[in-house]
Amino acid sequence: MKIDRRSTQPLYAQLKQLLIDRIRQQAYEPGQQIPSEMALCQELSLSRPTVRQAIAELVSEGILVIIKGKGTFVADEPERIEIKNVTANLFSLLSARSLDLMVDLQPDAIDADSEIDRLFGITDAPTRSGYWSIAWQQQEEGQIYACCKSLIPVYMFPELGPDLEKGKRMIDIVANKYAYLPQKTSARLFVRQARLDESQILDISRNAPVLVLSSRLTSRSGNICEISTTALRSDLVSLGLDTGRS
Amino acid sequence: MKIDRRSTQPLYAQLKQLLIDRIRQQAYEPGQQIPSEMALCQELSLSRPTVRQAIAELVSEGILVIIKGKGTFVADEPERIEIKNVTANLFSLLSARSLDLMVDLQPDAIDADSEIDRLFGITDAPTRSGYWSIAWQQQEEGQIYACCKSLIPVYMFPELGPDLEKGKRMIDIVANKYAYLPQKTSARLFVRQARLDESQILDISRNAPVLVLSSRLTSRSGNICEISTTALRSDLVSLGLDTGRS
Repeated sequence: MKIDRRSTQPLYAQLKQLLIDRIRQQAYEPGQQIPSEMALCQELSLSRPTVRQAIAELVSEGILVIIKGKGTFVADEPERIEIKNVTANLFSLLSARSLDLMVDLQPDAIDADSEIDRLFGITDAPTRSGYWSIAWQQQEEGQIYACCKSLIPVYMFPELGPDLEKGKRMIDIVANKYAYLPQKTSARLFVRQARLDESQILDISRNAPVLVLSSRLTSRSGNICEISTTALRSDLVSLGLDTGRS
Repeated sequence: MKIDRRSTQPLYAQLKQLLIDRIRQQAYEPGQQIPSEMALCQELSLSRPTVRQAIAELVSEGILVIIKGKGTFVADEPERIEIKNVTANLFSLLSARSLDLMVDLQPDAIDADSEIDRLFGITDAPTRSGYWSIAWQQQEEGQIYACCKSLIPVYMFPELGPDLEKGKRMIDIVANKYAYLPQKTSARLFVRQARLDESQILDISRNAPVLVLSSRLTSRSGNICEISTTALRSDLVSLGLDTGRS
């Protein structure tokens, strides 16, 4: 595409299209600096206001980015960690086959609490034995991208805390626990501001948006066996969903 | 829970727990104003710095929110539009059973473009007949929550634009198009800043985070039949995922 002075289309709009074409054809690549206003004026014999208007519109459309004191750049889509085949139980401890990818796993015993009991649907006193609160992170190439927490009733897995601390394998922890293992999961995925602890663990600014996967897992016995909440770095992660078969 | 002056736990930490308990028990509900510092000092016979520290920590943890000139409130989780059973082809035009929920549907013919051809894997000239670019919105209770765009090759659906403008039913549009209907979809879900047009349609501030579902649909004939991109209001929407059976 060239600038056509006899066209009815304004020169700034033609320049805008020319710049978009160059970006699409990767003449200017994502993150790369484009020529200065002056250089574009000279190359295409255009006036400064014409060049300025084209660039201003591309900046407002998010196609170009101005970095103060440096110049104008093609907007850079961040490199994302692609999590494939996302399912509702992606960050469940009890559904995990191994603990190998879970970093800094910390089990903690907490007392029975009427609010947590309500979430688990627990009302009868004998099962009010408290919860294991387990926190861990997931990382890829040294980059922590997920901050995970699970609650699991102590009466279902009385030795879970010590077992995790001893480094017991998942296959041994869940052995013979058939009735208490997750059979179905319902989850909600949404965006909210990071809580203080999440922003510290994920190394993002306070109140930055995080992608949250909040899951409730029901065991074969029909009881809720795990409630997990995972905050994902929304600037780093993309989730893969697939439907149908090839 | 009461404040225990003989406890080894600092008074501010006890007050913090007391406020959390009241919020959990819904003595203070989400969005509701809590008593002033002064009122808490008097009720519990605590000093001002003690009350201030407890509140400051709850604010930094996102449990309380200070609204300037108004007071301190229990943080309000936004009411969200729950989209159930999310699948990769949720916002596909060709997978839709009806057009009833699609607001302001606008088909537009665009010429063949080497960049779009590349996305569709189209290389041979005879099929380079251009694309239908179709924009619409989804709303619930008058609230627009999704800004949707689809690209569909003209050679697959030559009459799609006029058919949509005439208000033809989906069942008639896809009749006898067996080979060109979506059979599988691969999608990526991620968060990025809203583009200018998205922020205008969704009525959110420019650069606010949007949840994007980017889908590529493949037909029974093995060709890509639709590429759709949907920007969702991340402050309004939650996506439901389920795994397993009851």
